[in-house]
Amino acid sequence: MALKITISKKFEFSASHRYWRDDWSEEQNKEAFDLCVSPYGHGHNYELHVTAAGPVDPQTGMIINLTALKQNVSEIVRQFDHKYLNLDTPFFKDRIPTTENIALVLFDLIEAKLNELPGVLLDRIRLYERSDLYVDVWKE
Amino acid sequence: MALKITISKKFEFSASHRYWRDDWSEEQNKEAFDLCVSPYGHGHNYELHVTAAGPVDPQTGMIINLTALKQNVSEIVRQFDHKYLNLDTPFFKDRIPTTENIALVLFDLIEAKLNELPGVLLDRIRLYERSDLYVDVWKE
Amino acid sequence: MALKITISKKFEFSASHRYWRDDWSEEQNKEAFDLCVSPYGHGHNYELHVTAAGPVDPQTGMIINLTALKQNVSEIVRQFDHKYLNLDTPFFKDRIPTTENIALVLFDLIEAKLNELPGVLLDRIRLYERSDLYVDVWKE
Amino acid sequence: MALKITISKKFEFSASHRYWRDDWSEEQNKEAFDLCVSPYGHGHNYELHVTAAGPVDPQTGMIINLTALKQNVSEIVRQFDHKYLNLDTPFFKDRIPTTENIALVLFDLIEAKLNELPGVLLDRIRLYERSDLYVDVWKE
Amino acid sequence: MALKITISKKFEFSASHRYWRDDWSEEQNKEAFDLCVSPYGHGHNYELHVTAAGPVDPQTGMIINLTALKQNVSEIVRQFDHKYLNLDTPFFKDRIPTTENIALVLFDLIEAKLNELPGVLLDRIRLYERSDLYVDVWKE
Amino acid sequence: MALKITISKKFEFSASHRYWRDDWSEEQNKEAFDLCVSPYGHGHNYELHVTAAGPVDPQTGMIINLTALKQNVSEIVRQFDHKYLNLDTPFFKDRIPTTENIALVLFDLIEAKLNELPGVLLDRIRLYERSDLYVDVWKE
Repeated sequence: MALKITISKKFEFSASHRYWRDDWSEEQNKEAFDLCVSPYGHGHNYELHVTAAGPVDPQTGMIINLTALKQNVSEIVRQFDHKYLNLDTPFFKDRIPTTENIALVLFDLIEAKLNELPGVLLDRIRLYERSDLYVDVWKE
Repeated sequence: MALKITISKKFEFSASHRYWRDDWSEEQNKEAFDLCVSPYGHGHNYELHVTAAGPVDPQTGMIINLTALKQNVSEIVRQFDHKYLNLDTPFFKDRIPTTENIALVLFDLIEAKLNELPGVLLDRIRLYERSDLYVDVWKE
Repeated sequence: MALKITISKKFEFSASHRYWRDDWSEEQNKEAFDLCVSPYGHGHNYELHVTAAGPVDPQTGMIINLTALKQNVSEIVRQFDHKYLNLDTPFFKDRIPTTENIALVLFDLIEAKLNELPGVLLDRIRLYERSDLYVDVWKE
Repeated sequence: MALKITISKKFEFSASHRYWRDDWSEEQNKEAFDLCVSPYGHGHNYELHVTAAGPVDPQTGMIINLTALKQNVSEIVRQFDHKYLNLDTPFFKDRIPTTENIALVLFDLIEAKLNELPGVLLDRIRLYERSDLYVDVWKE
Repeated sequence: MALKITISKKFEFSASHRYWRDDWSEEQNKEAFDLCVSPYGHGHNYELHVTAAGPVDPQTGMIINLTALKQNVSEIVRQFDHKYLNLDTPFFKDRIPTTENIALVLFDLIEAKLNELPGVLLDRIRLYERSDLYVDVWKE
Repeated sequence: MALKITISKKFEFSASHRYWRDDWSEEQNKEAFDLCVSPYGHGHNYELHVTAAGPVDPQTGMIINLTALKQNVSEIVRQFDHKYLNLDTPFFKDRIPTTENIALVLFDLIEAKLNELPGVLLDRIRLYERSDLYVDVWKE
């Protein structure tokens, strides 16, 4: 049994979205998406937890330099902050911006970014749409 | 010195909004409203605290029947929940849906509603746009 | 205009209670008290905020010695903690243990206690039954 | 390595309970259960996190329809809400309603219920008795 | 009765401090300050709520431009962040850095700063040393 | 697939620390540790979650006696509370007191301590330096 250690940092963004499929009738949309069909969208304060794994550098005592982590992830988060996710971002042209899909998009973007930092591994992310609803994404 | 007592109940709604004045240039709008000028809006999980004052009924031990309070305020909150406040509600045709203005609109709507309940007084409301930004409204 | 300053300390207790009037029919009780009529009661994690006012002692930089505040209030809170408020305490023989009434009882007990400490004044208390329901009591 | 995703929803209930074994002496009970032996019980605001796994439906972008999740779990939670768990529910006739045992009962009930929904898997639950004490249950 | 409205913004800083009076014996210090006498100090994540009053500008819908508020208060907070308050700041040469005294210092600094912004009034501040201990300062 | 269950208890301590390597230049220190190089240190309210695994005792319904857990872990936490971690504890003579290193030290101390209790296993710990930054440590 080996000792495992991860560090997690929280980020926030405020965005709006709409759940709607053009190829479905209004009734189908309402049944699947309820209030989220509202034509101009509605919004949330999203909270994103990014968890990095990797050995603790014996010199710095850190898994990852926090300034580097903040800069890299903030750059990604800025693409979602104060946006209407359906129209203001390129990520939801062909999929609904549900919490699941937003989390999957964020996981891919953050993983690619962190891979550029030597020795760091994205362990998992958690995305809160509200304090009572959240999605976890990880690889295993 | 008289003893004073109030009871407060929290409500939540998720909405989106945009800050923009048509009679201003884009630069003026950006200077005043920063990221909030984004054309399709963005959103928040709003948290509303409604505080009622009044004598404690010696029979029920209550200032206000909580079921009545919940029903009356929820009816109002439903008009804001899952809405794009600028276009989906009638309240912000001629004013920006800032936290201040949303709180003022809510105070008026809730005060009128609670006045219909005998012996109850709206004492104050607090509206959180995010956990680190909130507005209080009261009369004195 | 004078500068005012208060200090507040949070306490917690877990208790259960039942809302019921023997002189009312079952229907009257259910209409007024809803689920709270359940015969053996139900419970909550109460959170109590106690706020003391008074001048800041220039030597200690404190309004009140926190150890003294904790000891005095904890002694009172212990009478409510892990109790069925209706039967295990003497306070609700003739009144319903609503959040309002529990707060009024606590205010009286804490005020009497703090009055024994020189120069300290109970400014107000806040009692949370849940994070979304709370009562404030103060004098003015 | 495959990508894994789960969605979690929070539920709440307020209940009371007592820790006591009839086949033990009062001293034994007090040593094991401390303040929780109080004869009429005491209570808590429980917070339940239910986590569902499963593929994201490419059409809806969802692991599980949230309305279905809420309805199914709320039906179960209602059996615990505003109850004295020892006497008002059938689950603790022969075991102490500790946080561990309540969580195990809830896991079984929720797992059976969610199994009826096509393609959904209960991944884990977390039950908070207070914000500083919680139990996790999962299968592996 | 006039309608009153305030807006509040939360700030954070992490600092350390020590409670000690050179003109007192070690016993006196320990009795008054308990664990806080530790020679090299200890620390907290402080949370500061700044509340501004003033009329809502009919054009912007705002009491105060939030960017201006953030810049002005952050400049002050930076003097406390990641500091040992006793030695790294000029404010506690002749007074103990208790929560009360830190709040009084912050109130004065913020009031002077906000007075420079036209039409804005500092209404009150709240300073949390921990989530269960906080000080309020206001004028009346 | 076997059912797994853990119980977690939260502890708190307030401490201060400094990040600095004597064998590095000031620039190197600042680049790696930013504001944390401040000579007298700064501090945080740390929050520690300790998670124990093990079978649920059929008689008590508990994985671990909570009083025993609290006593054992509090004894360890007291060595960190109200301390300047670099100088007041023996643990950081040759490593920086980062959140990662503090968590690793705590994991070792708690694991050794809990191993003395029959049938209990330390499953994992989580250490928050602030609400938006935390480290998890576990074995697998």
